[in-house]
Amino acid sequence: MISRRMIGWGSQDCAIREISAYGEKRAAEIGADKVFNFTIGNPSVEPPDCVHESLERMLKELPPEKLHSYTPAPGLESVRQSMADYLQRSFGVGYRAKDVYMTSGASSALAILAYALLSPGDEMLTFTPCFSEYRLYTEAAGGRLVEVPTDEDSFQLDVGALEKALTPRSAAVLVNSPNNPSGVIFRREKLEQLAELLERKSAEYGHTIYIIADEPYRELVYGDMEVPFIPAIYRNTVYCYSFSKTLSLPGERIGFIALHPELDDYASVYAAVCGAGRALGYINASSIFQLMVAECIGETVDISRYEYNRDFIYGALTELGFSCVRPDGAFYLFVKAPGGDSRDFCRRAMEHNILLIPGDEFGRGGYARLAYCVTPERLHSSIPAFRALAEEYGLVSKTE
Amino acid sequence: MISRRMIGWGSQDCAIREISAYGEKRAAEIGADKVFNFTIGNPSVEPPDCVHESLERMLKELPPEKLHSYTPAPGLESVRQSMADYLQRSFGVGYRAKDVYMTSGASSALAILAYALLSPGDEMLTFTPCFSEYRLYTEAAGGRLVEVPTDEDSFQLDVGALEKALTPRSAAVLVNSPNNPSGVIFRREKLEQLAELLERKSAEYGHTIYIIADEPYRELVYGDMEVPFIPAIYRNTVYCYSFSKTLSLPGERIGFIALHPELDDYASVYAAVCGAGRALGYINASSIFQLMVAECIGETVDISRYEYNRDFIYGALTELGFSCVRPDGAFYLFVKAPGGDSRDFCRRAMEHNILLIPGDEFGRGGYARLAYCVTPERLHSSIPAFRALAEEYGLVSKTE
Repeated sequence: MISRRMIGWGSQDCAIREISAYGEKRAAEIGADKVFNFTIGNPSVEPPDCVHESLERMLKELPPEKLHSYTPAPGLESVRQSMADYLQRSFGVGYRAKDVYMTSGASSALAILAYALLSPGDEMLTFTPCFSEYRLYTEAAGGRLVEVPTDEDSFQLDVGALEKALTPRSAAVLVNSPNNPSGVIFRREKLEQLAELLERKSAEYGHTIYIIADEPYRELVYGDMEVPFIPAIYRNTVYCYSFSKTLSLPGERIGFIALHPELDDYASVYAAVCGAGRALGYINASSIFQLMVAECIGETVDISRYEYNRDFIYGALTELGFSCVRPDGAFYLFVKAPGGDSRDFCRRAMEHNILLIPGDEFGRGGYARLAYCVTPERLHSSIPAFRALAEEYGLVSKTE
Repeated sequence: MISRRMIGWGSQDCAIREISAYGEKRAAEIGADKVFNFTIGNPSVEPPDCVHESLERMLKELPPEKLHSYTPAPGLESVRQSMADYLQRSFGVGYRAKDVYMTSGASSALAILAYALLSPGDEMLTFTPCFSEYRLYTEAAGGRLVEVPTDEDSFQLDVGALEKALTPRSAAVLVNSPNNPSGVIFRREKLEQLAELLERKSAEYGHTIYIIADEPYRELVYGDMEVPFIPAIYRNTVYCYSFSKTLSLPGERIGFIALHPELDDYASVYAAVCGAGRALGYINASSIFQLMVAECIGETVDISRYEYNRDFIYGALTELGFSCVRPDGAFYLFVKAPGGDSRDFCRRAMEHNILLIPGDEFGRGGYARLAYCVTPERLHSSIPAFRALAEEYGLVSKTE
C-alpha cells in the first residue's frame, strides 16, 4: 500500500538539508553569528534589479489573466522564443522556441529527463563528485546511477574511466559544469574526447547515448574562463538550465530544458519530456516567473561578490594548510579532509560550529563541501574557528 | 532507452488542452469573439485585491533572501502554520503546521499522493465522472484506477457501487467535491456512508483505505450549500487543496496537502509524501507564493461572478432544451449529449464554434463538459450558436 520506496526517500531528508537544519537549530541556541553554516547553496547575493522591476511592473500593468493563467505545459510561446534566441546568440546553436520546455527549476528538469530517457534497468552515468540527488532521480525513474570518478587531483573529466564504465545499457551521461561540489569547469578538450567516445559507442551499441548538460552555475565563473557549451560539441545533448543561482531565485523554481534541434530521435525525446512532465504532476512552470525570466534573460547577479568570497576563503584556508582545488566556478570549495576521513572531518568541524557536507554525499569521500555563498562577514568571522580546526589537525602550529 | 510510457503520455496532450489549443487557432482564424471556447478551466474572474497587494508589498519590503530562498521541502513553517490555523478554525479539525505540506498546485499534490500511497498493482478508486488526469497519475505511480460511476442522473456518490468495486488491493479513494466536471457537491449522508464502508473494509482487509479529498473548488459554491469537510467525517483522509481557482492563480502552482493528525500510519504516510516530492523533482513550492497565500488565506475571488454565469448558462441551455444537472459548485456544466453520443455532440458543437469536452474524457460518455469560467459577454454571445445546435437536434423548433 504506502510505497516503501517513497517512505525510504522521505524518511531522511537529503543530507545537505539535514545538516543545514541542524545549523539553524544551533544558530537559535548560540546565536547566528557564532555558527558558520556552509552547507546549503542558498545564493547570498541579491537578485539583479531587473527581477523586481520586471515583477513589479507586470503586477501593475498586465491584466491578471495574462499574468496568472495556465500556460501551455512547455511554457508560453514568447518565453520559449526568448530562451531560444538567447541560446542562439550566446552559443551559435540554432535553438527554436519549440526546442525549449520551461521547468520548475533544474531539479524538476533532471527528474523529468531521468524518467524520459531511462527505461527500467537503464544506466545513467555521471562523474563524481556530483550533486547528491542525481542518484535519487535516476533510481526513482527505475534506472541505475553509474558513478565515474573524475581525476583524483584536478576533478577534470576522466574519459578513459567513463569508457570502461559504458555498457549497452548506458542511456545518458549527466555532466555538471561548473561543478557542484568541486567548483571545477570541465575543459573543452575533455568534453571533445567525451563527445567522440559517445559517438563511437552510440554507433557500436546501436542507440544514442545522450548527454544531459546540467548547468545552473554557467554564469558563476571567475576570471576569463571558458565554460564550453556542450551542445555545440555534442549534438545529442539535452541542456538543462536553472535561474536559481543566476538570478538568486532558488525558491521560485524556474528553469528550462532545451533539446538540440538535431537531436537523434528528437520527436521521441520531446514527447517523453512532455509525458514525464505530465506524469510527475507538472502542469506548467510559474506563469509570472516565466514572463520575468524572458525579460531578464542575460542578466546576472553581481558575480564579483562570489568571486571575492572565492578568493578570500580559498586563500585563507590554503594559508591555514587546508588543501583544495581552486574552483573556477559555482560557489563551492571542495576541501580535502585532513586525515582522509570526511565524516570525521565534518564532525570535528561541527564542534567548532563549522558546518560542511561530507564528500561522501557527492560520491567522493575524503573531502568536504563548503558553500561560500554567504556574507563576507560570515567568511571573515569563521577564520578563527578554521584556525582552531587546522591546529587540531596539526596543519598550523598553535599560537602561544 | 527513451521511456515508451513517457512517450505515450507525451504524444498526446490531455484532450482538454488539445481542444483548447484548437480553439485558440480557430480564434486566430475567425476572430476570438466568434469562438465559444468552453474547454479549459482558466479562471475568468480576477484575483482578489489581496493577492497583488501582498505580492507588491513583499517585493518592496522584504529582503530578497526572505522572499526567494530555498524553503524547507514541506514549506515555510509560518506558512504551514497559517494553513493549519485556517483549517482548524474553519472546520474544527486540529491540524498543526507539521501536518501541512505545501505543493505546486493540486496536480502536484495528486501525483505525489499517487506515488506515496500506491505500491505497484494497488488500486486507486474514484467516482466518475472525474478529472481526466487521475488515471495518468495513478498509472504513472504503478497503480490501477478503478472507476466507480456516480448516480446516473444526480451524479451523487453511489456507495453501493463503490462497495462492489473494493478489493484487498484497494489503497485509496479519490473524492472530488465540488466536482469537476459535474459541478455537483457530494452530500453529507453519502460521505458518511462512504466513511462507514471504508472503516469496515479497512478492518476486513487489515490495511487502511485512505480517502484523498481533492478540493480545488471548495469555495466556488452557489447558494447556501454545505461542502462537507471530509476529514471531519473520515479521519483517514489526506486533504488536497489548491489556490488556483480560489485566488485565480492557476499558472502559479500553489496548494497544499494536509494529513489528518490522527491518520493511521501517520509517520509512514508523511515520509512517503516527502519521499514522493523528492522523487518527482519537487524542491519546494514557490517561496513568494507560499508567503502570499499565508497572507491571503480565507480570501476568495468574487464568487457571485461565477454564480451569475452558472445561472445564465444553465437557464439558457435548459430553456433551449438541453439537459443537465444544475451545478451547485465549481464552474462546469455537464450537459447531456442529445442523441447520447458525446463525441458526435462535441463535433457538431465545434461546427458552430462551440468547444466542449466529451464526457468520455471524464469517464462518463453521453455528456459534454462546458466550462463557464468565461466573460458574461462570451456566454451571452454563444446563445445563438447554441440555439442553432439545439435546432439541429430538434430540441427547439427553427424560428421562421
